[in-house]
Amino acid sequence: MDSIKIFSPSSVANLSCGFDVLGLCLDTIGDEMIIKKSTIPGLRIIKIDGEDLPLAIEKNVAGVAAKSYLNKFPTEIGIDIEIYKKIKAGSGIGSSAASAVGAVFGINELLERDIRKIDLIPYALEGEKLASGETHADNIAPAMLGGLTLIRNVESLDIIKLPSPSELIITIIHPKIELKTSHARTIIKKQVPLKSVINQTANIAGFISGLYTNDYDLISRSLNDDIIEKERSLLIPGFNSLKKTALEIGALGCGISGSGPSVYALSRGLTKAEEVASGFKNVISRLGIDYDIYISKINSKGVRKSI
Amino acid sequence: MDSIKIFSPSSVANLSCGFDVLGLCLDTIGDEMIIKKSTIPGLRIIKIDGEDLPLAIEKNVAGVAAKSYLNKFPTEIGIDIEIYKKIKAGSGIGSSAASAVGAVFGINELLERDIRKIDLIPYALEGEKLASGETHADNIAPAMLGGLTLIRNVESLDIIKLPSPSELIITIIHPKIELKTSHARTIIKKQVPLKSVINQTANIAGFISGLYTNDYDLISRSLNDDIIEKERSLLIPGFNSLKKTALEIGALGCGISGSGPSVYALSRGLTKAEEVASGFKNVISRLGIDYDIYISKINSKGVRKSI
Repeated sequence: MDSIKIFSPSSVANLSCGFDVLGLCLDTIGDEMIIKKSTIPGLRIIKIDGEDLPLAIEKNVAGVAAKSYLNKFPTEIGIDIEIYKKIKAGSGIGSSAASAVGAVFGINELLERDIRKIDLIPYALEGEKLASGETHADNIAPAMLGGLTLIRNVESLDIIKLPSPSELIITIIHPKIELKTSHARTIIKKQVPLKSVINQTANIAGFISGLYTNDYDLISRSLNDDIIEKERSLLIPGFNSLKKTALEIGALGCGISGSGPSVYALSRGLTKAEEVASGFKNVISRLGIDYDIYISKINSKGVRKSI
Repeated sequence: MDSIKIFSPSSVANLSCGFDVLGLCLDTIGDEMIIKKSTIPGLRIIKIDGEDLPLAIEKNVAGVAAKSYLNKFPTEIGIDIEIYKKIKAGSGIGSSAASAVGAVFGINELLERDIRKIDLIPYALEGEKLASGETHADNIAPAMLGGLTLIRNVESLDIIKLPSPSELIITIIHPKIELKTSHARTIIKKQVPLKSVINQTANIAGFISGLYTNDYDLISRSLNDDIIEKERSLLIPGFNSLKKTALEIGALGCGISGSGPSVYALSRGLTKAEEVASGFKNVISRLGIDYDIYISKINSKGVRKSI
């Protein structure tokens, strides 16, 4: 195999009740990458399509992740990477994680090495660190492994793949405003009232229980964020209207995707998810903001070779 | 039926990763209550054995709970309650909850009313409020329903009964020192660092996942408290040694039971739980503190008629 094509999916981190610990892999939007063997030794990013991102290895999330992997598992073979960004940087659906995961997974596949996906995560995390300044696995883990993932401990990479009830459908709206993850992080309060902690732990516990028992009502009752939504949502124009609309239509829950500005809703069934998408469009159109909108099942596989 | 005998079990609230939201019902220790019909109308507590508690209805947890129930479901029949306290007040294993739950459940059974256990909880909570000054269901729910319970929302009484992996055995040591719940509450910080919130949500999520998948290792890794243990454990002599000993012996986890001073350990299997009990005894004996010690399976039934 001299060349490989990769689909590296977008993802939704946090999911309201799981700040920094929960993530979900999307199915219908993701980056494409082509990774080729080269007779010239070394690692190069030779093309980036769709976004204005640096080609320099040490300044590029995919480059840093790939380099980290190759430092651990060196090769004499030269590697050229082409990145076709479909996920907009700064959209809040795991753009940098997709780049990092795709590069590491793709090179590992290209070199036909027998390393499990979960063991590739530390190298992808190195790339993510370049984007956010901190080690966060809540997009990396679902993009790599697929499904719904829990980061129980990021240092020890204790990652649990949770069940994904089959009728869960996600609607995502990306209002095209600039919002840097690092900025979104700075406005979060560093201290949380004890009452909010109790609510948050109760809700994530209810959510996890609902996933194991296919209890959509319990999932719905648990999809609340007592930690960051109030502050972060101030940066997202129309957030309160988007959320109100989604819940009135009958979404199970609605909140900020990652650090925003994208907003996600979880619905039971495709029809409901489509109705939510229409509702989202109405709200955001009235504000005169350009947007992208997506509807997706949960992608149970994660990053994969594409045909 | 003119008389009924009730076994009302003790319980362990919090379970380290679930401050104010998780609770577990114990099997081998609980109060006994005898509730009798009387020709004299009204509610009376006619005997309390084992503890020096007030007989006056409005000053007694069982009395307040019973009164709350009877206000909602009045009867012409007189009711006499005898309480045989086996759970020491202030021990941290749900003494007041057992009194409240026993009274409400017992009267309901005596009057042969067709009300589900879960619907009796609000009246038991009224009694618990007398003891702690606040509405907490994390002992009431497991004592009533049995098993492991999650209080997703205490206002709406959204209570989820979680699975109880069959090999889980609890060891409890009650060092006989005075520790008021209300005092233990006051030393808790009202603000929690964000990093601790993330750890706590990750751990309760891991714990719940472990319960559904019978993953004892995951349960063990998740049994941590980032919220209250550090402060509250200062009030419990020998806590650090007790915990260290339990974990060295191989307990899955160890922490404060409720607001203390009792300390619980969860183990996989009876043999391990007995070894932990021996370890606990050694530690606390060296300190010259009197103690009670219990080993128990999880009681899946909760409060019940006794034979």
